[in-house]
Parts: sequence; structure tokens; C-alpha cells
Amino acid sequence: MSSAFEDLQKKLKQLPGLGFRSAERLALHLLVERPNRLPELVESLQRAASQVRRCTVCGGLAEAEVCGICSDPERDPSLICVVEQVLDQAALERSSAHRGLYHVLHGKLSPINGVGPEELNLESLAGRLASGNIRELVLALPNDVEGEATCHFITENLVPEGVAVTRIGFGLPSGGGVFYADPVTLKSALESRRRYS
Amino acid sequence: MSSAFEDLQKKLKQLPGLGFRSAERLALHLLVERPNRLPELVESLQRAASQVRRCTVCGGLAEAEVCGICSDPERDPSLICVVEQVLDQAALERSSAHRGLYHVLHGKLSPINGVGPEELNLESLAGRLASGNIRELVLALPNDVEGEATCHFITENLVPEGVAVTRIGFGLPSGGGVFYADPVTLKSALESRRRYS
Repeated sequence: MSSAFEDLQKKLKQLPGLGFRSAERLALHLLVERPNRLPELVESLQRAASQVRRCTVCGGLAEAEVCGICSDPERDPSLICVVEQVLDQAALERSSAHRGLYHVLHGKLSPINGVGPEELNLESLAGRLASGNIRELVLALPNDVEGEATCHFITENLVPEGVAVTRIGFGLPSGGGVFYADPVTLKSALESRRRYS
Repeated sequence: MSSAFEDLQKKLKQLPGLGFRSAERLALHLLVERPNRLPELVESLQRAASQVRRCTVCGGLAEAEVCGICSDPERDPSLICVVEQVLDQAALERSSAHRGLYHVLHGKLSPINGVGPEELNLESLAGRLASGNIRELVLALPNDVEGEATCHFITENLVPEGVAVTRIGFGLPSGGGVFYADPVTLKSALESRRRYS
């Protein structure tokens, strides 16, 4: 075949969800079937890499200092929903069930994998909570051991008095991440949120 | 979220085998989880786009005028295997069962979809067959209506006397039970039955 082709196939195979066959198919699609898509994809990748950064407030994706959600005056700034990753935030946004802001941790506590509080986006959450402007903190973390530990850590260490802590409720299948849930499930999970601790 | 992010997600979703969720996951992987992979992928795409081209002999992938298979002196140049696409060639190469050369048509005849003989890589196949150096032409095209029509067209119009034309066998895949096979496969398996012992 071709070594540049095999290299591309290898690079594609490293990406999540792509196996050997799908990487091969993608590479051929971009090189043989639809070669005009390749420069478009390259441009899109480069533009995203240069423009997309972390929101300094919530840690989500932004193209400016502060993301579009954090700077949206229509949203309730006293209500913060804590999520593990940007994918979870995107899934919640699709459900339109949360009208407050977010805080993206970019992970969950996992001592086994060497993920401690310092590895997570927790310092800025502490700052937001200490501002005195937060009424409620909704914990939208998965209900596995690590999600549990993260909820516990936040509640014990970061939440000042006067802030209600809730956790999204039943409806989420055990062991299932927020990302995989459908909008209706997420909506009911948000509606059935209960006081935590 | 971010418009550069959404644009990247849209571009990824256009690729074969990628749905909305997998495109979103890929985009986030490249932007948030493993940002160092993005420039590597871009470089690999650009290198492949600039280096990979069609072999002027067989139509397969090459990094020079002629591909590595066509220029391999160990392979039998009198035996040509005709395939629909490069993916088919790659699958046959993995089987190590074909020691001759290839000819990649980049499609199959499909009047309904406006694919006539001019749209396929047939002219150079005619040239190779007319050279007088070909002993056998193996048609490794699918056994659907279009594959059938393509086999028929090649045999009727391009093959000079003295060239044996064969077609790969159809039947039950290795390890596949009769119970799981579809009716068309079973029909061709029965039709291509051979005397046993």
C-alpha cells in the first residue's frame, strides 16, 4: 500500500471509538473517495485547535475568556451544575432542562488512577462557591464509586453554609454516564434531584 | 459551546461510520483530552494527501508512479485480480492468498446511479489485457446486480482471446453456520457446491 497511508490509518486508529477497519475506511474515504473533504477537515481541526479554549469561569469550551453559557444574561447565575466532562455538559444542554450555569471538573476523584483534588477543576469551583452568589449546587456526577467520592469531597470541603447541594436523581441507569443518557431521562433526573448529605 | 468546535464536529460527522455522538466524542478527545494528538493527526492527513496518489498501472494507492505491489518482482504479473475498491485489495492482501497483481476499478457499473464504463478505471485494464502478458483475470467483484453487470461488461468487451477469466467463489464464510447465512449466500453456496472426497 503506502506508508503515508498506513501512518494516517494508525493515527486514526488511536482515536476513541475507531478500530482497525473503521480507521482504514476513513483514511480511504479522505484520500480516494472524497479527497476534497481532507483539506476542509484539516482546516476545521486547525481552527478548532487555535480558537477553542477553556472557559476561565466554568472550565467548559469557549472561544473567548468566558464561554457563551457563562456570559448569557438569561441564565440563572445562582444555580451551578457540576459535571465530570464537557460531553456531559453538552448532553444536559441538549435536554434544555438546566437554566443555570455549569462547572466542568474534567474528571472525577480516583485515587487508584492517581486523580486527586488537584487534578480536577476544583479550585475555581471553590472560588465561585465562596463568592456568596450561589444558591444551589446541582451535582450531575455519575453514580459510581468515583462520582460518589467526588460528590462527597465537594460537599465536605468546598460548599459554604447557605448553599443548597442537590444531586441529580434516579432515572440515570446505575453505572451509566450522563453522556449516554437521552434528553428525557436527563430531564427527569434533573427534576427529581434531591438534597445531598 | 463553541462554533469552531461545532464546525469540527459537523466535519467529522460527514465521515463514514461516524454518527453525532462519536463525532462529538472525537472532537472533544482531540481538543480537551489529548490535544497533542491533533497536530499529529493534521500532519499525518496533510502528508498522506500530498504523498498518496493512484498507481498508474493498477489504480491502487501509491507513493510513486507505480505502487509497491505492481513493482514487486516476486509477484506474478500474468495474474490480475480485479477489485471494486482499495478496501477490497487491502482485505485480499491481508489474506496472503493472491500472489499476482491487482486492478482497482474504483466502483462498479450502476446505470441507476449514473456510473457507466467511463466512470470506472477500465481503460487501463483494457490496455493491460491487450499487452498479451496476462494469463488469468480473477474477478473479485461482489455478487450483487452491479458486480454481475461489471463482470459481464469486462468479459464481453475487454478480455482478448487467450486470457482465462475466473471469478472468486461465493458461499458460506469461514466459521459461519448455515443457520446464520442469508438466503442469497445460501443460494450461491449451493450453486458453487463441489464434489466432496
